[in-house]
Amino acid sequence: MNITVWNEYHPKHQSGKTAKVYPNGLHNAIKDIFKDNPEINVRCATQEEPENGLPDKVLDETDVLIWWGHNWHENVLDSVVDRVCQRVLKGMGIIFLHSSHESKPFKKLMGTTCSLKWREDGGGERLWTINPSHPIAYGVPETFTLEQEEMYGEFFDVPTPDEIVFLGWFEGGEVFRSGITYRRGYGKIFYFQPGHETYPIFYDKTIQKIIYNAAMWASPSAPPRPTLGSTYTPKHERRKLFKWK
Amino acid sequence: MNITVWNEYHPKHQSGKTAKVYPNGLHNAIKDIFKDNPEINVRCATQEEPENGLPDKVLDETDVLIWWGHNWHENVLDSVVDRVCQRVLKGMGIIFLHSSHESKPFKKLMGTTCSLKWREDGGGERLWTINPSHPIAYGVPETFTLEQEEMYGEFFDVPTPDEIVFLGWFEGGEVFRSGITYRRGYGKIFYFQPGHETYPIFYDKTIQKIIYNAAMWASPSAPPRPTLGSTYTPKHERRKLFKWK
Amino acid sequence: MNITVWNEYHPKHQSGKTAKVYPNGLHNAIKDIFKDNPEINVRCATQEEPENGLPDKVLDETDVLIWWGHNWHENVLDSVVDRVCQRVLKGMGIIFLHSSHESKPFKKLMGTTCSLKWREDGGGERLWTINPSHPIAYGVPETFTLEQEEMYGEFFDVPTPDEIVFLGWFEGGEVFRSGITYRRGYGKIFYFQPGHETYPIFYDKTIQKIIYNAAMWASPSAPPRPTLGSTYTPKHERRKLFKWK
Amino acid sequence: MNITVWNEYHPKHQSGKTAKVYPNGLHNAIKDIFKDNPEINVRCATQEEPENGLPDKVLDETDVLIWWGHNWHENVLDSVVDRVCQRVLKGMGIIFLHSSHESKPFKKLMGTTCSLKWREDGGGERLWTINPSHPIAYGVPETFTLEQEEMYGEFFDVPTPDEIVFLGWFEGGEVFRSGITYRRGYGKIFYFQPGHETYPIFYDKTIQKIIYNAAMWASPSAPPRPTLGSTYTPKHERRKLFKWK
Repeated sequence: MNITVWNEYHPKHQSGKTAKVYPNGLHNAIKDIFKDNPEINVRCATQEEPENGLPDKVLDETDVLIWWGHNWHENVLDSVVDRVCQRVLKGMGIIFLHSSHESKPFKKLMGTTCSLKWREDGGGERLWTINPSHPIAYGVPETFTLEQEEMYGEFFDVPTPDEIVFLGWFEGGEVFRSGITYRRGYGKIFYFQPGHETYPIFYDKTIQKIIYNAAMWASPSAPPRPTLGSTYTPKHERRKLFKWK
Repeated sequence: MNITVWNEYHPKHQSGKTAKVYPNGLHNAIKDIFKDNPEINVRCATQEEPENGLPDKVLDETDVLIWWGHNWHENVLDSVVDRVCQRVLKGMGIIFLHSSHESKPFKKLMGTTCSLKWREDGGGERLWTINPSHPIAYGVPETFTLEQEEMYGEFFDVPTPDEIVFLGWFEGGEVFRSGITYRRGYGKIFYFQPGHETYPIFYDKTIQKIIYNAAMWASPSAPPRPTLGSTYTPKHERRKLFKWK
Repeated sequence: MNITVWNEYHPKHQSGKTAKVYPNGLHNAIKDIFKDNPEINVRCATQEEPENGLPDKVLDETDVLIWWGHNWHENVLDSVVDRVCQRVLKGMGIIFLHSSHESKPFKKLMGTTCSLKWREDGGGERLWTINPSHPIAYGVPETFTLEQEEMYGEFFDVPTPDEIVFLGWFEGGEVFRSGITYRRGYGKIFYFQPGHETYPIFYDKTIQKIIYNAAMWASPSAPPRPTLGSTYTPKHERRKLFKWK
Repeated sequence: MNITVWNEYHPKHQSGKTAKVYPNGLHNAIKDIFKDNPEINVRCATQEEPENGLPDKVLDETDVLIWWGHNWHENVLDSVVDRVCQRVLKGMGIIFLHSSHESKPFKKLMGTTCSLKWREDGGGERLWTINPSHPIAYGVPETFTLEQEEMYGEFFDVPTPDEIVFLGWFEGGEVFRSGITYRRGYGKIFYFQPGHETYPIFYDKTIQKIIYNAAMWASPSAPPRPTLGSTYTPKHERRKLFKWK
């Protein structure tokens, strides 16, 4: 199984507050989530690389793409956005983390503004598992707390999720659909709200378990490949289809 | 349109704390929600009456039943529970309020335990509208606060709702799917969490608007009445069905 | 209530087979569906007009837009597509008919290819109501037949519908999710499969009832208008929010 | 992993038409589906055994229960029905086949009549995969045909499924939601329509693949076990929960 972890990793993130928490970039912290499973190959890609690090060659070898972006969404090439969305519709799994709710591929796949409320004031978050039999919740406690996380609040302008796995609670009186799934084309999508770059979210064992589960859930198996477009079955063949004709 | 408001209205509720807040019983407070619409007839029924106040004659004249019960669910006759559930499956709308999540008809219609977390400590609740285009949310603000309400928290052991209209936030760090809809048979069901008997919840203008909207939404119109069971279409008739045969 | 019926109405449709069935264009046949309700104003707009007939002025006065297009989707200006999608996300209802599954606004709102199987061979369709308590099904029989209709078959590459109201059956052995709903932003969307231009589908009483119901269902009421973006509640104010703090 | 295949296996099925197709009972044909996987233990249980073959001891060792019943639903003890439903709500997976839509446990878990249309006339069925990325569809073709199967038609009076994986097409003009999933409590449920006892359905490779996939999908993992009921967090502890208080 091949996972690609994508991070905008802007030069400004390579020093300052973010670098203090994630000296090698948070993509490497996310990569480490999978290090104990020898059957999973993880590579990283970043926005500053040619074709934003996502040429066809990389996507050809990607079963699940994990996307983290925050402030430089506009720097992602539209050609790369189209390529990523096409791959998802053809079966590649994708996990959008935190501020990726405003990334171009997420908005294009959702068809809505994906806007929400937000506030960064050092407050924390409490998450609740409301879909306990979902594979993404395997081994996850019913509730867990993040000492500090950026607040994301409803109304979250996304399509009705196929499934809501986690709800988030914030000290300021906000709630959020913090872990939600979608099926689009032949691909699976998981959006997960935690992951602000100045907090050590991706070192949290429960967060790591959820991202690990989500990658397993999102990885493509052998879906049918419907034939689309014009179709013609001559009557005599239709007749043969069914014994009673 | 005919609405019946049902309240367990146990003698113990007819004095003490509940009676202080609802001197005539909370069923009458709920009844008043509809008093400005001359086209709506509202009657009340209570558990202590014969057949728990819900003989066939009453249900024959009920488009939407509003149910409030808390501590005496076991006193509802199984024959009445069966009758109410049958009516819902045949098209009667029903609104379950607050502790009715543990009423016999709600549990029978859901097929799950309908358990949840709860705490009564004088804390408040903040509700959020997450389905702004839903008829039950018409004219409801994006968020509103109840100064005091019993806490109901996830995990709420109900089937996946058809729609989630409201989420609840509680000061102790809990969240809840506070306003949810289901379709069962030809009937519509709305569960709404607020409504603890010792708080003046049913005098709140926003709560009143939601219950009013829910009754409009749940009222049956003219659904198709499918024929169920064995069906036989002779081949020559099937042939006639379609021009090309 | 203001409805705008949009039809690509290409010059090639203004003569030949389509014109035989719909001498004044099928937009006028659809417009007639509402003629008995004096409270509904219906206007028509067509692709050949400036701004494809949909300048802001028209959309300002549109509660529900009904869209029919088939062969000239590419002729719709991207600026018009963006404008229509923005309106839907802000609350305008929209009904996509038949081949509009491949229209630019539908694909943009769905985020998928919206591909399907199709065949035109003079065969018929049988539709089934599988959501009998849905407002769009009010007064619609459990099943009805269209003597001739273009076959549209699964797999239909759309997001999981919020609700499936009708399923379609075709003589060649195909099935289709023929009537489906979505909520996007503050707007409601209904996709309805029947409506091939060379058949008198829009004169069918049941089809007319469904389109009428769908327009009523999709028309915006008074949804909450969430405030999105950065939000800040000073701690002392949060404290005031809740009695117990 | 432990699977129990349950069959009503009435003496009347032990001779005559059914016995011709399934000489050892169809439970053994279903059991054989898993014979190539040494990590799966499959046992069979039948209605005529004490406690209908499902004492606590058997359910203690059951991860997924596969249920097939048709004409003797009433012979299942209510105590066994309660026991099975409780296990599902606590996490046991369950697969209901064909006429089990009218079995007591299915109706109790659904809360509806579970009625449908039916006809047995030697006609066939064509199934379509409409959820290609669902684990139950892995390796299943987009469409496949059963030469003979009892017709089950809409309206199918069940709750809105969490997911629809397969749709069925029948020669008489009927359609059906033939493969649907539900989550109830901590358990997963799959209902699959094919499987009439006088046809060799359970020898069909595609049917076998679907039942195998469904058992994998339904098997419980390590879901969180929420604490339900009264909960109390002293204010000073709540304060400690969150850094900023």
